[in-house]
Formats: sequence, C-alpha cells, structure tokens
Amino acid sequence: MVLGGHQVVAVVAPVAPGRLPPRVPVPPPRSFLRTVGASLRETLFPDEPWRAVAREASGRARAFAALRYAFPCLEWLPTYSLAKLRADVVSGLTVASLAVPQGISYARLAGLDPVVGLYSSFVPALVYTVLESSRDLAVGTMAVGSLLFASMLGPAAPPAAQPEMYARLAFTATFFAGAFQASLGLLRLGFLVDFLSHAAIVGFMGGCATVVCLGQLRGFLGLPHFIHDTGLPAIMASVFSQTAQWHWQPFVLGCCLFLFLQITRYIGKRRPKLFWVSAAAPLVSVILSTVLVYLIHGEKHGIQSIGSIKKGINPPSIHSLLFSSPHTWLAAKTGIITGIISLAEGSAVAKSFAMAKNYHVDGNKEMIAFGAMHMAGSCTSCYLTAGPFSRSAVNRDAGCRTANAVMALAVLATLLFLTPLFRHTPQVALSAIIASAMLGVVDLRAAARLARVDKVDFCVCLATFLGVVFASVDIGLIVAVAVLVLRILLSVARPRTTALGRVPGTTVYRRRDQYDTARGTPGVRMLRIDSPIYFANASYLRERIARWVDDEEDRIRAAGKESLRCVVLDMRAVASIDSCGTKMVEDLKKSLHKRRLQIALANPGSEMRKLDKSEVLQLVGDEWIFLTVAEACDYAQSNCKLGTASPDEMV
Amino acid sequence: MVLGGHQVVAVVAPVAPGRLPPRVPVPPPRSFLRTVGASLRETLFPDEPWRAVAREASGRARAFAALRYAFPCLEWLPTYSLAKLRADVVSGLTVASLAVPQGISYARLAGLDPVVGLYSSFVPALVYTVLESSRDLAVGTMAVGSLLFASMLGPAAPPAAQPEMYARLAFTATFFAGAFQASLGLLRLGFLVDFLSHAAIVGFMGGCATVVCLGQLRGFLGLPHFIHDTGLPAIMASVFSQTAQWHWQPFVLGCCLFLFLQITRYIGKRRPKLFWVSAAAPLVSVILSTVLVYLIHGEKHGIQSIGSIKKGINPPSIHSLLFSSPHTWLAAKTGIITGIISLAEGSAVAKSFAMAKNYHVDGNKEMIAFGAMHMAGSCTSCYLTAGPFSRSAVNRDAGCRTANAVMALAVLATLLFLTPLFRHTPQVALSAIIASAMLGVVDLRAAARLARVDKVDFCVCLATFLGVVFASVDIGLIVAVAVLVLRILLSVARPRTTALGRVPGTTVYRRRDQYDTARGTPGVRMLRIDSPIYFANASYLRERIARWVDDEEDRIRAAGKESLRCVVLDMRAVASIDSCGTKMVEDLKKSLHKRRLQIALANPGSEMRKLDKSEVLQLVGDEWIFLTVAEACDYAQSNCKLGTASPDEMV
Repeated sequence: MVLGGHQVVAVVAPVAPGRLPPRVPVPPPRSFLRTVGASLRETLFPDEPWRAVAREASGRARAFAALRYAFPCLEWLPTYSLAKLRADVVSGLTVASLAVPQGISYARLAGLDPVVGLYSSFVPALVYTVLESSRDLAVGTMAVGSLLFASMLGPAAPPAAQPEMYARLAFTATFFAGAFQASLGLLRLGFLVDFLSHAAIVGFMGGCATVVCLGQLRGFLGLPHFIHDTGLPAIMASVFSQTAQWHWQPFVLGCCLFLFLQITRYIGKRRPKLFWVSAAAPLVSVILSTVLVYLIHGEKHGIQSIGSIKKGINPPSIHSLLFSSPHTWLAAKTGIITGIISLAEGSAVAKSFAMAKNYHVDGNKEMIAFGAMHMAGSCTSCYLTAGPFSRSAVNRDAGCRTANAVMALAVLATLLFLTPLFRHTPQVALSAIIASAMLGVVDLRAAARLARVDKVDFCVCLATFLGVVFASVDIGLIVAVAVLVLRILLSVARPRTTALGRVPGTTVYRRRDQYDTARGTPGVRMLRIDSPIYFANASYLRERIARWVDDEEDRIRAAGKESLRCVVLDMRAVASIDSCGTKMVEDLKKSLHKRRLQIALANPGSEMRKLDKSEVLQLVGDEWIFLTVAEACDYAQSNCKLGTASPDEMV
Repeated sequence: MVLGGHQVVAVVAPVAPGRLPPRVPVPPPRSFLRTVGASLRETLFPDEPWRAVAREASGRARAFAALRYAFPCLEWLPTYSLAKLRADVVSGLTVASLAVPQGISYARLAGLDPVVGLYSSFVPALVYTVLESSRDLAVGTMAVGSLLFASMLGPAAPPAAQPEMYARLAFTATFFAGAFQASLGLLRLGFLVDFLSHAAIVGFMGGCATVVCLGQLRGFLGLPHFIHDTGLPAIMASVFSQTAQWHWQPFVLGCCLFLFLQITRYIGKRRPKLFWVSAAAPLVSVILSTVLVYLIHGEKHGIQSIGSIKKGINPPSIHSLLFSSPHTWLAAKTGIITGIISLAEGSAVAKSFAMAKNYHVDGNKEMIAFGAMHMAGSCTSCYLTAGPFSRSAVNRDAGCRTANAVMALAVLATLLFLTPLFRHTPQVALSAIIASAMLGVVDLRAAARLARVDKVDFCVCLATFLGVVFASVDIGLIVAVAVLVLRILLSVARPRTTALGRVPGTTVYRRRDQYDTARGTPGVRMLRIDSPIYFANASYLRERIARWVDDEEDRIRAAGKESLRCVVLDMRAVASIDSCGTKMVEDLKKSLHKRRLQIALANPGSEMRKLDKSEVLQLVGDEWIFLTVAEACDYAQSNCKLGTASPDEMV
C-alpha cells in the first residue's frame, strides 16, 4: 500500500529482533444482564423512540413530547397554515377522484358490495390522519389484498351465493389483520416485515397484477360467470368455456378507456406538473362511459352496468364480526397474511417517499397506525386498506398533511349524494381502470435490475411470480418464504473461506482470487473466514480449512517447495463466535498440531473475551494472536521452524 | 502498528500530493451458471468425494477407488491382520457384555419385548461393519431414542394393551428413520444436522437422561404400573399414587447394584487401561443379581424378574411394516425425529473420536450407513439404534475394525443359547444399569463450560433441559428448534455496527469500544458493518448508520468542534451483498449527500462486482472507494471540504 506521509511517520521504528508486536487486548468482562439488555434494546428499539423525550429539560415538556410521539398530528397541527390547507384540498380532491372509481372496482374484485370500497376510503383515512407517521401515504383499498380476500375466503362462503356471510368473513379478516399489525407494532417486532425481501415482493406483486389483469377479461368480454380462483390455467379455462357469451361492444369500449388511461398516465409521468391529468382520468372515464351507456342504452348491447349503490355513510359492523364460527380460523389466517402484505406494501411506499424527502418513518408506529385503522374499519363496514403507490404518488406531488382527511370528506360527499349517479356505470369501465392500474404494478425495470445485479434475487423473484401466476397466490407466497428461508440458512451454513496474499509493495493482505497481484508467503497459509463461527457452520468450517491445508500441501509436494509450517486465520470478518465456534478453533488447533503445523489468529478482536474465557487463547498461545495478518505472517516466517510443534503432546 | 523491517521498505515512498492511492479492482465477470455451480458444489460436496477417485491414473484404478468409496470395508480388508483381529475380539466381547444387558434394558424402556433389544444389536451391527465410515462407533440401542419411541408411539397403541400393534409401529418408525437418514445422505443434505447446536443437544440429552433416571424409580420401588408419559410432574404423580405398593427389597438391591456400577465406572475413568472393568460391570451385576434372586426366591420379596426371553435369531418383520394404516403418519413423524436424534448423537460421537485419532468421518456416508442399517433392521425385528458414547468409548480404547461384527456374533450366541439364563434376572438390575448409564449422559461439565463461555448458548441449553424435564420430550425439542431459529434470524436481522478509531502509532483502525487507545479522526466518522448486507437487515442498517451520524453530530455540536464532513464505511466484514444491500448503499449515499456529507467505502473487495453492476460505485464515485480505512481517512481529511457536496443535485 502506498501510504501518505501521515502513516510513514508512524512506522519508521522497526521492531527490534525478538521483540513481540503489540498485543490484542481482551476487553474487560461485562455482565450477562447488561449484554442481554443491550442486545434487546438494539433488537426492539433500534430507533430509540425515547430520544426525543429525553432531550427535553422539564417534566412537563417531556410529557408533551411523549404525547407528540403517540399522536404525530400534535406535531404538525401548531404550524398548519392556510397555504398548506389549500395544497391539501387540491391533493385530497385529486386523490378522491382516483379513490372513488378504484374503491368501487377493488371491492368488486374482492367479491364485496361496491359501496364497501367507498366506506373503506372514508373511516380508515380519518383514523390514519390522526396516527400517521408517513405524511405522503394516501390510504385506500388495494388490488392485491382484494384478490387475496376473494381467493382465500371465497371457497368458504362464495360471494355470489352467500354475500352476507362473505362480507362478515371479510370484516372479521380485516379485524384480525388490524389486531396482528397493531400487536407487531406494540411488541416492536416490525423488523419481521423486513424478512420479505424486495425481490420476493416484486415477483409477488407482478404475479398478482398479472392475475388481476387477466381476470378483467370478464369485464372486457361482458361475461356473466366468473370463478374466483386465481392462476392462469383456471382463468383461461373459464374464459374459453364461455365463448358463446362473448360480446364485442364492451370489449371495444374497454379498449378505448384503457388506451385513454394509459395515455393520460404517460402524460402524468412525463410532466410531473400535470399529475392531475392521470389522477383525474379514471373519474373522467367513469363519467364519460356512464353518460355513453345511458345514452345508447348499453344493456341492450351486452354492456353490463354495476347497478344501484346504497346511499349513506358506513353502517356499523361490529356485530358482524365472527369470533366463534367454524370459519374464524380461516378469517384469522387471511387477516394475518393480508396484514403482512398490506404492511409490506405500505411501508415500502412510505419508506421510499421518506427517503426522497429526507424525513424519517417509524416502522413500528406505522404498524400501530395501520392496525388501529383496520380495527376501526372492521367495525364500520370497511375491509382491508393500504397505501397504494399510485394514490400516494399524487399525494406526494401535491399534498401536505391533511390530504387523507380531505379525501375522506370528498368520499363522504360521494356516499351521501353522488352514489345514484354510478347506477349506469358500465362494469367494463371498472375493468379498464383496474387493468390500467395493475399494469403499473408490474415492475419490469426492477426485475431487469435484479437480473443484472443479483441473479439469485432474480430467481427468487421469478419463482414467486411463476408460483402466483401458474399455481395460486398462496403457493406463490409459500414459494417466496421457502426460498428466502433456505437462502438465509444456506448462507449461514456454508460461509466463504478464501486464501489471502500480500498485495505487492504494501502490508495489505487481500483475497488471492480477487487481487491477481496478491502473492502467498512461502511456508505460511493465510485463510480468511467470512462469517460468524457458530453451531450451524462450525463443523463445515473445520473440514473446509482442513481441505485448504490439504490442497496447499498437495501443491507444495507437487512443486517440491518449502513445506507448510503455519496457518494464519484472518478473523476480521468473524463478527461473533459461540461455544461451538470456540470448540472448532480448539479442535483445529489440536488437529493442526498433530500435523506439525502452527496456528495463528490474526485480527480476532471482536470475540477476544469469549476466546479467552473458553481457554482457546491459552491453548493457541498468546504469542500467536496478532493485530494484523502482516504481523502474523512475519512472526510465523521468522519464529516457526519446521517440526517445532511436537506431536507427542496430544490432547 | 509497529512493523518489522520487511514492511518499512515497502512504505518509504509517500504518495505525491494529489496522487490517488491504488484502486480496488472490480473482478472480471463470471457467468451465472458457473457461480451457481460453484456454490452448489460447495453446499453439497464440501468434502469433494471424487478427490480420491480423480487422483488415480487409469480407468480401472478409478473404478476400484469409487468402489472403495462406496464400501469402506474394501479399504481396510487388504491390510487386516491377525493382531488386529485379536484386538477386535477383545473389544467386541467387551462391548457385547455391555450390549446384552443394555439392549434388554432399553427395549423395556421403549415398551418392546426385551429380546428386540438383542436383535437390534445383531443385524444393524453387521450392516454397519460393511458400510462404516467411523471405525470407532459401536452400534447399539440408545436410551433417548427408546424414550422417544415410548412417548410418541405409546398414546396410539399402548405397549401393555396392544404389544403387537406397538411393535409393528416401532418397526415402521425405524424404517422411516432409516429412509429419512439414507435420503439425507444421498441428497448430501447432511449439513442440516449441524443446525442442532451442541448447546441444544447437551440440554436435550441431559433432560432425557433425567427423565429416564426418574422413570427407573418404577424398577427400584418394584411398582407394577407405570405410565409412559415423560415429564417430571407426571412421573412423580404416578410414583406417589402407588405408595402402598412400594417395596424395600428391590430398592436395597438396586442401590447396591447402582453403587457397584458407579464405582467400576469411576475406576474405568481413572485408569484407561482398566476400561474392561466398567464395561463388564453391567453383565457382572446382571449375573450376580440373577443368582441372588434365584437363590432367595426374589418373587416372594417383591423383586420382579423380567421373565422368559425367546430363543433364536431375528425373525423377519418386513410384513409387519404399516404403510397404509391410520398411524403411518405418526410412525413417519416419530421416525424422522428419532432419526435426526440418532444421527446427531452418532455423528457427534464419531466426529469427536475421529478428531482425537486424526482421521476423517464423512457425514453423508455416515448417514447412508445409518439409513441402510435402520432399513435392514426394520425388516428383521430391530428398532432404532445409534452409536452410544459409552460403548463406542470401549471400542475406541480396544478395538480396530471388525469389533462390531464380533459383538454381533457374541449377541448371536446369546440369542441362540443364553437367553433362558435371563429368566430370573430382576427388573431392578436393568433399572440400575439404565440409571447408571444415564447419569453419564448428564454432561454437567459441558453445561458449566457453556455458562462460562457463552451465556446465550447456556440459555438455549437450559431452556431445552427444562422443556424436556417439566413438559415433555417433544416440547423440549420444539423449544430448542424455536430458540435456535430465532437466534439465527436475530443475528441476521440485527448485525453489529461499530465506530472505529486509529490505534496510536499505527495505520490500523479498530473498534473504539474494544481498543481504549483508538482515536477518532476530526471531521470523519468511521463505521464498520459486521455482517453481509441483505434484505433481512438492509433497512435496519440504513437507519442504524443514520443514528451513528446523528449521535456524532450531536456530540460535535455540544463540544463545538469541527463539524462532520465524511462517513467512511469499513466493509471488510461484508462478505456478501444482495440487491437490497446495493439499494441500501445507494440510499445511504443519497441521504448523506442531502446532509452535505461525503460517503467513502473502504475495503469493499468481496462484492465489488455487484456494486459495480448496480452502478453504486459510479454513484459513490470511483475516487471514494479505498483499499483500507487509513487511506479513506487520509483522503477524506485532505480532499473533503465542508459543504463541497451540493444539496441541489438531489436524485
């Protein structure tokens, strides 16, 4: 390494012959309880929520800070201004113009009465305004959650045959989703959501969007019957078994609307200032198609309309919740799974916006807000909601703080006065809106990025996608989780070990497979272990290191060079070591000793205390513990004679 | 770092001002298939089994090497000598004198006919001799496996009420255990056994031994009824509900025998040469007690004897296997669980002996041998076997290669001629043998070592022990697996990050919490990430690093010192990075940029290719990637001016 003048000053004094280089200190002992406390704090409170409270000086200020922590709205209310309100009104009305048609569409996708989709954009949005942690998230129904509801709850109570029972199941599942989310947040287990990797989410969302898009063929072709099974084969079989009932009129209308929506979406993307064009397009297409169908008497041409929608605000549904039905367990399972998906989508969107605007989103608070929103929603005839990307993006561009509340009021006005207007809205308009929104969810660019950067992640993504599209949503999820767990276990069980060499002209030792110029030292084998050593990999590492030594000895024998005398283990990347790990180092020392090889540990800083307590340091010998690989190598070359280790002191 | 003369030569030339230090190379691209192939090979064939075959020159020699690999006996047969045979006869007879009483005892423990225990020491031992990979393992029945059989299969077919059905279930479970073990070995998934950590095994074995010991109160007190439930409360309730039937005579006899066994065990431990004393003690105590009971007519004094044992070799039992019974699934579950336990015990014993004698045990071959042994055994009236430590230790001290075969022949002779002699053997003698053997399994020293070295491991061990003793064997196992999986997930989700400082007088940067003398550099924050960066921890790491920076800025503000200009990430321990990880580095760069902070990566060698492909290197800027932390620090100090990063180029 060509060092700056700064370092050269430090290394002018060479070590006197025979003098030992500086030692690695063993850290002072620390009580077990303190260690456990520290790691619990790091696990459950990585964000130190009490930080803001502790900063305040007086007791009263602290109490107010704690209150502000619990109800984030207290933080921004004092500085809320008329200008912000104006921005929020613009944003809220735009989001509402998107929320109303999407709410109706997604509720139909979930097999629920269309008005439930409107209810779900009202109460949850108000709850979220009070508890929100992300200021950009726009609350509303989500397509993937609706699809999951239909495919998981449908078999127990078919929505066409038992609409009331199905609605009760859906409210119960929503309640369980909320309870699960809130308890995750309260127990501060939010990090469990991180275990759904980005790759799996991209594949899962893409698969769901594909299935939902295909499902819209029903609306486009004007088919009366449709199964709620997901999966490409079932959908295709259902569509092609009803060829007699295909209609060209809704198909043409649907394609026109779809094209209109795509064009406005393109405009909105290219000109961020014109975001309202794409946001208002669904409402415009609903209005246009409704007027058209009304004028030409669409029913006569095979264009089905959605029919009358009830007037009035959310009726209470707390007595509809099923806590002792044979289907309660199914509802709980559906709630937990959809709860995770809604959290994963919501927190991914919230985090990406927070990143862009440089503020912080508290994952655990987000979960509590989602949980409260779902539990309140399940008692007021709402079903699963989340923060879908399309609506939140509008909010981010225009809104401020109370956009969700404005949106809720606009939806309220719709519920009270405007629902009769949707009577003649053709189903195909809703299908076109869903298909257009879902096309945006298929994230081909993210998949291409995965394929370029990390092929394994791409395989996870592809497997999940194929599982969802060709089997079913549940199987896709199972595939994703299985692949991810397997990946973690494998990475834990088979860590990498690499041979090191000195980079010429420096004292730096690096991987020989990466640095072509790095050279080995005669008689010394330097190995780096790239992971913690613990029960899951200790025996593998022991055998792998033995194989490295065998390989080197074979090579030396073939080349007739100076034989091996010392093995230097670079432990810089060994972040932790458990009792199996210390045993492994001990075993390694003993077996190398029998082969007349010395072992040296370089850089074992992180776990010196454990190595000391397990008496491995004493067994290896204090003089064979080094601060750097370079020191270990030099010391071994000058002090390690062939055959100095006597094999008769076998342990 | 005080360097030897060797290095000083290398660093005499200081870098000219403005010249960049040497770059970190991006490794050449490597095809995805080659990468996958390499990691599959490392996962499934870490021992390179073809190595021995590939070494041979001619095709014929290679075929023979492959045959030798499949049947290890071909390797040692050519060099087998008369002297080795003599050693094996001594060892085999000694092990047999231990195997006969233990076989009878453990079969009773499992709720099976005592003769099944003898059968199980015959056929499996012969099969293992042919396929063995560990030369020291002595095959025989195991106490823990017997206990598991009784507690898992007992509820479906109580051994007292339906002995025949119970035996069929036991043979079926043995078959499934064998099939599972063999398929693990053939699929080369042996590493899955490593996930049972040493700590969990110590706790589990200790708990089982405690339960088994307590269960022997039945024999000691001469009780006629006894439940097969495990768990302290159930056992105690059963013992104290039968106080009327307690007898003092078997208790006294049992205590005498127990004392005798403990004393001989102590002698055998202190004087390794006298190993045969402790090995022969069980047989001696059986003979002595049988003669005594015969002479004093034990039945009259409440001393129960085991009754007649069938004469003759193993009857076939292949038609007894139940493949389409309602209990097949239970038998399969029992087989899989006991198969894992028997493997874990067998391979732990085999590996520790191989370590001591410096030869290699192939885990996957070991599994195939165990699987073949169990499948053959299940067809010939044998139940679960393993390589118990007590017998294997005798074998290690005295035996060579065919000790298992000699032992099998001795058991055969017993089966053919000697079984009538056991007619009057008192049950309490068997109880004393079991209790004495089990006391040796409770490894208090290992537990104490765990408590000293690694408190978390000790907690795993204790939780498993308490689960087995106070709840049941199954619950203990579930506790162990749950704790271990949780530990892996936590270590993956919450990796350690530490602040680094320069060790005075060197260019070495180390953890400031460990090295008291390490000093920070003004204006530069150096952080080390101690784990791979991937989906499970990327968002935690992003927030944790932001907190480190916040902390440092708070501290600087309070002290009124030079403000922060650069964050150096030491990525030496980042062994791998996935697409979420590269995204995290990208996000971090962007958010630090907004705070007018420069980011520098030191030592990102392991994953340069992925960082390059994901364009993170280009985003960070090539000049901010360094070989060492020292270089990054120096470069940052001289080139990073306050506010050079302009916040208007927001991305």
